[in-house]
Amino acid sequence: MAQLKRCYLFNEDMAALQKKLEAQGRELRDLLGGKGANLCLMTNAGIPVPPGFTITTDTCIDFVEAGGQFPDGLEDEVLDSLHKLEEQTGKRLGDADNPLLVSVRSGAKFSMPGMMDTVLNLGMREEVAEEMARVTGDERFVWDAYRRFVMMFGDVVKGIDREVFEDCLTEVKRLEGVTEDIEVSAAGLRAVVELEKQVYEEQLGEEFPVDPQEQLFATIRAVFGSWNNDRAIAYRELNRIAHDLGTAVNIQTMVFGNMGEDSGTGVAFTRNPATGKKEIYGDYLVNAQGEDVVAGIRTPMAISELDKKMPEIYQEFSGICERLEKFYHDVQDMEFTVENGKLWMLQTRNGKRTALAAVKIAVDLFDEGLITQEEALMLVPPQQLDQLLHPQFDPAAREDSATYPHLTVGVNASPGAAAGKVVFTAEEAVAAAEEGERVVLVRHETSPEDIRGMAAAEGILTSTGGKTSHAAIVGRMMGKPCVVGCSAMVIDYDKGQFVAADQVVAEGEFVSIDGASGEVMLGDVPTTESDIILGLKGDEAAQQTEVYQYYTRFMPWADESRSLGVQTNADTPGDAELAVLLGAGGIGLARTEHMFFGEERLPAFQRMVIAENAEEREAAAAELLPYQREDFYGILKAMDNKPVIIRLLDPPLHEFLPDDPEDQQVLAELTGKSAAEIEDIVEGLDEANPMLGHRGCRLGVTFPTIYRMQVRAIFQAACQLKQEGYNPIPEVMIPVVGIVGELEIIREYSEQIAEEVITQTGVELEYKIGTMIEIPRACLVADEIAQVTDFFSFGTNDLTQMTFGFSRDDVEGKFIPAYVTQHIIAVSPFESIDQDGVGKLMEMGVKLGRQANAALEIGICGEHGGEPASVEFCHRIGLDYVSCAPLRVPIARLAAAQAQIEHPR
Amino acid sequence: MAQLKRCYLFNEDMAALQKKLEAQGRELRDLLGGKGANLCLMTNAGIPVPPGFTITTDTCIDFVEAGGQFPDGLEDEVLDSLHKLEEQTGKRLGDADNPLLVSVRSGAKFSMPGMMDTVLNLGMREEVAEEMARVTGDERFVWDAYRRFVMMFGDVVKGIDREVFEDCLTEVKRLEGVTEDIEVSAAGLRAVVELEKQVYEEQLGEEFPVDPQEQLFATIRAVFGSWNNDRAIAYRELNRIAHDLGTAVNIQTMVFGNMGEDSGTGVAFTRNPATGKKEIYGDYLVNAQGEDVVAGIRTPMAISELDKKMPEIYQEFSGICERLEKFYHDVQDMEFTVENGKLWMLQTRNGKRTALAAVKIAVDLFDEGLITQEEALMLVPPQQLDQLLHPQFDPAAREDSATYPHLTVGVNASPGAAAGKVVFTAEEAVAAAEEGERVVLVRHETSPEDIRGMAAAEGILTSTGGKTSHAAIVGRMMGKPCVVGCSAMVIDYDKGQFVAADQVVAEGEFVSIDGASGEVMLGDVPTTESDIILGLKGDEAAQQTEVYQYYTRFMPWADESRSLGVQTNADTPGDAELAVLLGAGGIGLARTEHMFFGEERLPAFQRMVIAENAEEREAAAAELLPYQREDFYGILKAMDNKPVIIRLLDPPLHEFLPDDPEDQQVLAELTGKSAAEIEDIVEGLDEANPMLGHRGCRLGVTFPTIYRMQVRAIFQAACQLKQEGYNPIPEVMIPVVGIVGELEIIREYSEQIAEEVITQTGVELEYKIGTMIEIPRACLVADEIAQVTDFFSFGTNDLTQMTFGFSRDDVEGKFIPAYVTQHIIAVSPFESIDQDGVGKLMEMGVKLGRQANAALEIGICGEHGGEPASVEFCHRIGLDYVSCAPLRVPIARLAAAQAQIEHPR
Repeated sequence: MAQLKRCYLFNEDMAALQKKLEAQGRELRDLLGGKGANLCLMTNAGIPVPPGFTITTDTCIDFVEAGGQFPDGLEDEVLDSLHKLEEQTGKRLGDADNPLLVSVRSGAKFSMPGMMDTVLNLGMREEVAEEMARVTGDERFVWDAYRRFVMMFGDVVKGIDREVFEDCLTEVKRLEGVTEDIEVSAAGLRAVVELEKQVYEEQLGEEFPVDPQEQLFATIRAVFGSWNNDRAIAYRELNRIAHDLGTAVNIQTMVFGNMGEDSGTGVAFTRNPATGKKEIYGDYLVNAQGEDVVAGIRTPMAISELDKKMPEIYQEFSGICERLEKFYHDVQDMEFTVENGKLWMLQTRNGKRTALAAVKIAVDLFDEGLITQEEALMLVPPQQLDQLLHPQFDPAAREDSATYPHLTVGVNASPGAAAGKVVFTAEEAVAAAEEGERVVLVRHETSPEDIRGMAAAEGILTSTGGKTSHAAIVGRMMGKPCVVGCSAMVIDYDKGQFVAADQVVAEGEFVSIDGASGEVMLGDVPTTESDIILGLKGDEAAQQTEVYQYYTRFMPWADESRSLGVQTNADTPGDAELAVLLGAGGIGLARTEHMFFGEERLPAFQRMVIAENAEEREAAAAELLPYQREDFYGILKAMDNKPVIIRLLDPPLHEFLPDDPEDQQVLAELTGKSAAEIEDIVEGLDEANPMLGHRGCRLGVTFPTIYRMQVRAIFQAACQLKQEGYNPIPEVMIPVVGIVGELEIIREYSEQIAEEVITQTGVELEYKIGTMIEIPRACLVADEIAQVTDFFSFGTNDLTQMTFGFSRDDVEGKFIPAYVTQHIIAVSPFESIDQDGVGKLMEMGVKLGRQANAALEIGICGEHGGEPASVEFCHRIGLDYVSCAPLRVPIARLAAAQAQIEHPR
Repeated sequence: MAQLKRCYLFNEDMAALQKKLEAQGRELRDLLGGKGANLCLMTNAGIPVPPGFTITTDTCIDFVEAGGQFPDGLEDEVLDSLHKLEEQTGKRLGDADNPLLVSVRSGAKFSMPGMMDTVLNLGMREEVAEEMARVTGDERFVWDAYRRFVMMFGDVVKGIDREVFEDCLTEVKRLEGVTEDIEVSAAGLRAVVELEKQVYEEQLGEEFPVDPQEQLFATIRAVFGSWNNDRAIAYRELNRIAHDLGTAVNIQTMVFGNMGEDSGTGVAFTRNPATGKKEIYGDYLVNAQGEDVVAGIRTPMAISELDKKMPEIYQEFSGICERLEKFYHDVQDMEFTVENGKLWMLQTRNGKRTALAAVKIAVDLFDEGLITQEEALMLVPPQQLDQLLHPQFDPAAREDSATYPHLTVGVNASPGAAAGKVVFTAEEAVAAAEEGERVVLVRHETSPEDIRGMAAAEGILTSTGGKTSHAAIVGRMMGKPCVVGCSAMVIDYDKGQFVAADQVVAEGEFVSIDGASGEVMLGDVPTTESDIILGLKGDEAAQQTEVYQYYTRFMPWADESRSLGVQTNADTPGDAELAVLLGAGGIGLARTEHMFFGEERLPAFQRMVIAENAEEREAAAAELLPYQREDFYGILKAMDNKPVIIRLLDPPLHEFLPDDPEDQQVLAELTGKSAAEIEDIVEGLDEANPMLGHRGCRLGVTFPTIYRMQVRAIFQAACQLKQEGYNPIPEVMIPVVGIVGELEIIREYSEQIAEEVITQTGVELEYKIGTMIEIPRACLVADEIAQVTDFFSFGTNDLTQMTFGFSRDDVEGKFIPAYVTQHIIAVSPFESIDQDGVGKLMEMGVKLGRQANAALEIGICGEHGGEPASVEFCHRIGLDYVSCAPLRVPIARLAAAQAQIEHPR
């Protein structure tokens, strides 16, 4: 490995360094951090950057690993770089005659704004200040810089509460009878410095250091240490940044925006990060240092004003903006300072932006010839597209907390805005919806019996459960806004009310939930519908909107680039149609169990479950057949010419029988059995661990009546459509397979039934019979299974549950968050595929499966199919398609495109 | 592959064929079946065997796969072999002048006694019978043979109920006014043949075939078909025999034991299969055919009588017995016939025997110089050792005939003590056993249809039959106590009772049978430990018993041969001590959860669970500490100098809290909380799938108080023992690990506590900290885990549950039996390791683990650790040890020895 240095001057040859790093599979910013790399690159490009040098991230890691000790030789290297810097600038750190002042800033590979620490004006001391004041003739500026330095050093390096120093300034302002910082006199500021130093001495029992090298090394240590402060760790967890990257430290010549009216400081984007509009966007403060802008203490002027005030500077800045966009192929977020009429760039980085801006900027940059189509695709984080598709609360209204009091914040399980009257049961939700009312279904948690109620509600709100609880999954599947796990909300079903934030909310009162933020508000907060969906559905006004037009230009690029198919998980014709509008190539998972909860169906289904002989069972199944045929007819018709994978019954039978005595009584009367008999049957079917029980294909083997009926309904519906001139492509999927023999038995009778129905109707019909791969053992014996199946579809929800031994109902709310906090896992495996464990099983399944059956089609229909990192993983291990909820289809399309661009196959 | 024929004459060169097969990795009996191979080998060795030929097992498989069609060319090959047979014997099939009669019998690789079908006297027809009668002058014999042939052909080949034919004989007996078969006149038997043929015609609407080739091919078809009859399938399932082996068919010249007083038939063992005594053991029936012995219809004479009746024959037979033992290196189970004073061997095979006999015979054969020590080890099926360790009737109680009246004494067919409620049908036995009842199956005689009932019963009691009757053979094979031939016992199935010693015993009453002595007692006689265990514990009388002496000679051979360690799963000092006596090298799993259920402990544990703050929790833990220390002190002391693996708490916390309101009230009072609060806590801890919930190391991470207390107790106990001069070797085992971070956290605090306690007490103590591997993910990331653990212990119970997605509680009773019946699995994966799935994960775990940590110790502590096939698997994949329940330790030792002999490592 080529030897790397610990310190790099900004003006060193970056091309050479990049080449060295490339050989190690690293980028410049891996070593120098994002900020350092950009300062070096700008300097190399001749853009005005105050001179400086960067201490590498590797050094930070060595420091951390050594328990907070500088590695050998670091001090010498720093001093060597410092001397070179002094030569460049002709100034010397701590030299009263010609003092060099520097800033010391952290800068990790990934931007972590405001998370780590900075010290400015380092090198300041009594003598330096006095000499500077004499030379510049601006005493006020010098003592202001000094008092800022003492405060930052005390805070950042020594951990003294910043407020203690603020109080010194406040005290002086009181003495001078002024209110604004800028009104304090030079003598006043000098007094502030004295006060601050006293405070420092009192707190630490030592004098404020005057040796500039001592100041410097102490600050470097503090910045390295700040990599592991609580805020930084929390930020990395939230943003899935690895903890072992370390931060670089940038030591840079100070320039001053507070040198008078011809000085100032600004923060700007090369384009508008909210709308994507091509305009320099940002703030500028005259006679101020950078922190004043960020801190929001003084109200800055819009950057466009600068054009009027200092047109040459603005001109120069504009030119730099253009050069930077060209160089970085992306929108830049910059900090700059004007010192006595001279422009200095202090920082640049790719700008964060909203979804709308991201799409618009990507398309515009392409149109401007700055980037390729593939680069444009890489500029939009797939997850962000979500924002564009869900209805949103009107931003103004949601801020109005007098009208819409905030009640609580829960887990943001399914994005979107929903407002409606509170109901506490699925039945009430259905009834109210039938009356045309909007409702929000509020439950401790939901269960399959609530499905119709959930479908009827605008949104779902629960007091327990996590991001993959029943409510969350079904919510996302249905595209319903959903907030779960609101533990601060106490529901009292008996009283028909819940309490949150000391507010009693009764049934029938309006609440508004924001599934993107997890916020719950009282009242009917107005919403705006997504123009994209309206447009896709044919609304002409919506089609004129910018968001629609950019979206519809951008998304086809994703389809051109990707090699991975994108299907959808949809159980109804309506969902299926929406998914097609959003770009789904077919249905990867249509669940059938919800179909049995209809009013006429459930009793027949229950009769089938409790039948005592084959005759009764067959009779009940015969009753259900027309309903199922109708369900499948609807979906297959909506998906004409597209494959539709229909999964046979998955959950255990007890989910369909009532638990409580009253409902059991009803069922008893309905079936002519005694309530005691029903109770016995329910108890007999009860399971200690239903997740690992008698369900899926296990029912198909031991209780084939249901599956036989479902298969018959599928093929009757398909054949009928065929006769009517449609082109249905049904694919039967058998869940919970772990042993090849299970599949063999079910496949055999399914094929028999299919052939029988096809022969009877005399049509020609292509179909497939395949299996879910969701039991760990299925991955281990995938070669056996592949020989009797047409396709695999990874059910990563259950596969994750069994591979980890995690019942998500039981672990998500309970200890998964603690596991993330304690760094045991980086992210819940239910959110993003656990590539080391579950992923290894998947890879094994793919390899063994394809070896045994070259024609095998392989996809994924777990919820991970709509999560970008998981989509990328699926692409890499060679899946044919991912399948996800309709609203996640665009996300998956874009993620698939990015995966192909980064890992071509 | 060398071309194999479909038919082999017994006198063909077997050495040549064996060589050919060896090249394919096959044995003679793979191709010719056990019976066929032995007939050929005996013929090759010059032992008198009636000439014949064998159709191969491969042919059967071809037949089955072709849906019951003969493969091309088979008929010609059969006819060719038949012609050669006719040349050898000088007789011709169907030739009235010099008729050849043959038997047609199935013969699979593994003996399946009575499971498949046989037809005797094939080639018989009117003209043949008349000519034979003329030549032999024994009309009675000829017509008896003919009527048997018609019956067997009708039954076996055409599926007519055998009873229909029996009725023909009964009718003739009635007409002739006789009661015994042997009293029927020759004319009467001829009339029986006529009646049977009428019955045949009535049932089938076709005449009984007279063409002998047609008879032959139909019979061969039927025998091939019998491979897949229900009884055969059930037998294979019970005995874990593959379903794809097929059966051979043996066509052999008939010899007749029913040719008069100088004829007869016998079944014999070269040694006593019940006791192992070196004596020819068996039954002989004068003037009878073989089936009469096995069916137990007539009570035969002991074979020793033959020495008096026909000393030359007995002499010849003795000599053959000796030659066969030398040739096969094992005890032989033979069938023979004497036809007009000439001895013919019809069959030989390795004899099934009781555990006692197996051990004694193995040791004796070694002492006699017939076999090596390793061969001796291979002669005892490990599972059988179970029988030797089973309880026996308490000697005092069995003498107490007032309480336990002696009913009768029968033939001691299979040793062991069994007590249970009387049932009279196999179905009742199965049903009662499913309810958890102990039953004794009482029958006139048993037949292959009773197999499942026999397996379900504690013991078997029959009123007829001898030592080689069906009940006796199967009883010994299953290790079930069995008393047969209790002629003084009169069974009345209709009344549901039997009478013996003037005592009426009704269905449902308890009887106790002693299979070693043949005694039958009324009531549920209490049992005591086996002589082996008593002897190991120091009982001198027990040490004088033959079983103890042979056991203690045999078992050390196993230890000399094996490379796999054997540990035990024991939670108490008593269990641990017993396990050491039985050969355990240490404790592989001491569970700690049961320890919390003590009267004083549970409340403290519950207080810890429901504690609202750290203080309360620590206080409760402190209260528990002395109890746990005492527990660990006891076990570590009992296992001085041996490693003791103590598993930290495994189950979820809710298992320790009461479910029902009354107990919750008690807990509320105990803890000063309200009943409602307790209910809330219990509900809050309740889990949908506790198997996949908040348990094991997940508690150790989120709720470390318990683990910290347990670890402290372990090390305090160990250090105390060390101070007292003992040498405890504690090993802490962390369960449910799936992510390396879990282990890191727990290991870190455990080591801290260990070092703290060790330092405080000032002793030196070696210890290990390791982990269960029971979560599928743990196998997938075993390389990561191996770096922070001293040992792996496969928890194959949970690993099987999660790999299959099978909750044992929910699937074992429910659909696993159906899966076995439907051939989806061969055996429950909870009984024997699923080598294709779970085993693959284990192999991966071993490989990754050892790669990352060469010093890693790997064992298994799931229940599979005591099951022979699983032990062999563990040996093959390179585990260091298996750990099992104390009584299974000897089984594991022997299985490990056999594994090493067959797969040296």
